[in-house]
Amino acid sequence: MQRYFVAQEQMSDHKVTITGEDVKHIGRVMRMEPGDEIVCSDGHLRTVRCEISLVEESLIEARIVEELVPNTELPVYVTIAQGLPKGDKLELIVQKGTELGAFAFLPFSAARSIVKWDHKKAGKKIERLTKIAKEAAEQSYRERIPNIYDIHSLAELRNQISSFDAVIIAYEESAKSGEKMKLAEILQSLSVSQSVLVIIGPEGGLTTTEVEQLTEEGAILCGFGPRILRTETAPLYALAAISYHFELMR
Amino acid sequence: MQRYFVAQEQMSDHKVTITGEDVKHIGRVMRMEPGDEIVCSDGHLRTVRCEISLVEESLIEARIVEELVPNTELPVYVTIAQGLPKGDKLELIVQKGTELGAFAFLPFSAARSIVKWDHKKAGKKIERLTKIAKEAAEQSYRERIPNIYDIHSLAELRNQISSFDAVIIAYEESAKSGEKMKLAEILQSLSVSQSVLVIIGPEGGLTTTEVEQLTEEGAILCGFGPRILRTETAPLYALAAISYHFELMR
Repeated sequence: MQRYFVAQEQMSDHKVTITGEDVKHIGRVMRMEPGDEIVCSDGHLRTVRCEISLVEESLIEARIVEELVPNTELPVYVTIAQGLPKGDKLELIVQKGTELGAFAFLPFSAARSIVKWDHKKAGKKIERLTKIAKEAAEQSYRERIPNIYDIHSLAELRNQISSFDAVIIAYEESAKSGEKMKLAEILQSLSVSQSVLVIIGPEGGLTTTEVEQLTEEGAILCGFGPRILRTETAPLYALAAISYHFELMR
Repeated sequence: MQRYFVAQEQMSDHKVTITGEDVKHIGRVMRMEPGDEIVCSDGHLRTVRCEISLVEESLIEARIVEELVPNTELPVYVTIAQGLPKGDKLELIVQKGTELGAFAFLPFSAARSIVKWDHKKAGKKIERLTKIAKEAAEQSYRERIPNIYDIHSLAELRNQISSFDAVIIAYEESAKSGEKMKLAEILQSLSVSQSVLVIIGPEGGLTTTEVEQLTEEGAILCGFGPRILRTETAPLYALAAISYHFELMR
């Protein structure tokens, strides 16, 4: 069944009111009519099955038929802090990372980031990434849309560290030196509803200085297996491993 | 250090002879000279550090300095059987899947595959995918290049099933119904050096008939977590989970 996210205020006890782009999608693209059913999420863990009762040019109303408990959110809150990569890799990371259950994405300007975002560019980029996250969340049956944070500096990223229950750095040198216990150890120590920040360098990796500054604040270096992963592959590895650990092994 | 794959016959006891495209890469792109060091793998688990001794227009020779034991291959052999997806998704799957340790890729024509490969097209496609696998294997420090099989029909895929120690089907309906034990159970039952085939449907998934035909031969339906993954995300999930299980949790 087709799924849509709506704002909390668009969902009352018995009715969902749809406005904006989704009206066109439901009415023109999907050609749905009164009587057809859709699933709506308010992005705050309320998901309902509902029957369309009114289709207008710029507004659709649907009567709530059933409260659903899809239970598709990862049991731990994973934020991906991604050193700005080249090209459209961040779009791939947000799309696939959303499917894999990421709670939020935090892009940061790393020393080796070749791409720079000025203020104007950043706004547009984040708007586009938010749209990608929404579509991926709908497609993958998520109950919430991951948040896309504004671009952070390394100092701002450091300031975030203390607000997470665990902070992991995907570290190439750890992979090369055969380090392979840390990730499993950290996941073992985490409980349901705790939060984890996964920090990933851009192409070329984090510098020694960056690594020092992050580990000083409590971030822990982890190898993600013995192979060297590209910057856009590392977050997907982390999310799949976390899903396997918390959702399939228990 | 820059890494290159060579054929077994190009690596003798004391010397590596490089021909073909890599000569241009080493000489013109990397501008290496006698005295510079590279790493070479023969694709059959022999990896050496060597010092370039001769640079010619179409040939490079390098003296072997050290036998290396990189140990970067997944301890189980994972073949990804991928229902032909749209566009260039197979390229993404081969690139990322190689980084994540896949042993081989087996594309197959599924009932819902929109793309068709005729004989001529298939040859070119496989050539291109092999090149992508080689580059990804070099970049990720693999010791072998994953094999890209010719396109299989479902009947041919069925015939392969008995040659694997375990066969998994990534199944959307399993994910939706909350099945979440099978993948971990199967991985638990596998030992080092055993082989596993992971079958993934194209966009739209496998048909009920296909699923029946594959499970009849012994393939087992598995959910990869509660979220619905796109066809190109499922193989990456499987490989990351297998890496986490065999490489990091032990």
